This record gives sequence, structure tokens and C-alpha cells, in this order.
Amino acid sequence: MSDYFTQIADAVSFGADRPGKADLFAGRHLFVGLNCFEPGQRQRVHTHAGADKFYLIVSGRAHMTVGDETRVAGPGTLVWAPADVPHGVAEALERTVMLVGIAPPPL
Amino acid sequence: MSDYFTQIADAVSFGADRPGKADLFAGRHLFVGLNCFEPGQRQRVHTHAGADKFYLIVSGRAHMTVGDETRVAGPGTLVWAPADVPHGVAEALERTVMLVGIAPPPL
Repeated sequence: MSDYFTQIADAVSFGADRPGKADLFAGRHLFVGLNCFEPGQRQRVHTHAGADKFYLIVSGRAHMTVGDETRVAGPGTLVWAPADVPHGVAEALERTVMLVGIAPPPL
Repeated sequence: MSDYFTQIADAVSFGADRPGKADLFAGRHLFVGLNCFEPGQRQRVHTHAGADKFYLIVSGRAHMTVGDETRVAGPGTLVWAPADVPHGVAEALERTVMLVGIAPPPL
């Protein structure tokens, strides 16, 4: 095990009842983790006050919402949710793995 | 063009003389961009004082250094460089595209 290196594939976990989550690294200034969705699962629209966030779709496909935009995001799509802008996952269309980063980290 | 959605593939750029860089999103709390290496290119070991950073290898393969660890990183490897810990790319072994995030953003 390393403090500095990890493989996304090793941290993927899905849940039948709710999306799977994994914490990868948490520093004082930045949190990085995974959100893993089964087809049909969602993440309600929410806002991080004073924190910037991104999602990177690693695999799968989902309808993503930021502000008043909703788009289909697939592998290699980077989704930017700046501080105070509402965002969420309207619906995963396939099994979908997303890397997420939030700065500063959630309390 | 969207303020919130982009494709990594659309921002990839390589340079013969030095690694290619692309800014994807820059907020007050978080910067996200790309670093693109031709085989043999390097990024010298450096430190971000007071800023956490990660690299995600999107494609390719490189020797990465953080602190006193050097490892081969390939697609799906997440590399964590906490604030004040020296890090760099010892050598790209193939054409390599990395997503990088830094919080707070560089000045």
C-alpha cells in the first residue's frame, strides 16, 4: 500500500440501494474520491457552498446537470461545478464510475 | 461551448520541446488541467507550498515520483501529491495524458 499511488479500479464499489462511494485521498485543501452508479441511480441536485467540484466520467454514461445545463456525459467528459452552482446526476444510463474532486474538502 | 462540460480529448496537446499543458477549469478553490507528455519527456521534481495536487493517468504510462516513492503509473492510476511533498514525472514511457488538479490554484 502506498500513501501516494492508487488504482481507481481497486476502489470501485456499487450499491444496490444507493450509489457507491469511495474516499481516495483527503488533504487539507482537496478531497478526491469515486462515485459509482448502477443504471437508473441518481444524485439529487445539491450545492457546495464555497467549494469547487469536478466530476470526471471514467466509464459508463449519465445525464449530468450543472446550473441550467443537463447533458449526457461519457468516458472522458469533465464536468465542472463551481462553488455555489447546483449540480447533480440526473440519471445514470449505464454502470458509471466517476472520479470527483472537491476543494476545500467537505467537513 | 459550455461553462460546465468539456471533453478531455478535445484539450489534449503535445509539444516537441516541452510537455503540453491545457487549462480546463479554474475556480477560486480548484484548478483542473491536462499535462501531456511525449515519450521521454519529464517534469522536474517540484513542490506546491500549501496546495494539494493529484494526477490521474488518462492514457499512456510514466514513471512518477512523490516523496521518496517512484512507480510506474498507467491508465487509471491516481497519484496524490499532498501539500509540501515533492513530486514530478521522472519519465514518460509512452505518449501520456494526465488530468491534474491543484487546490488552491497556482497564482
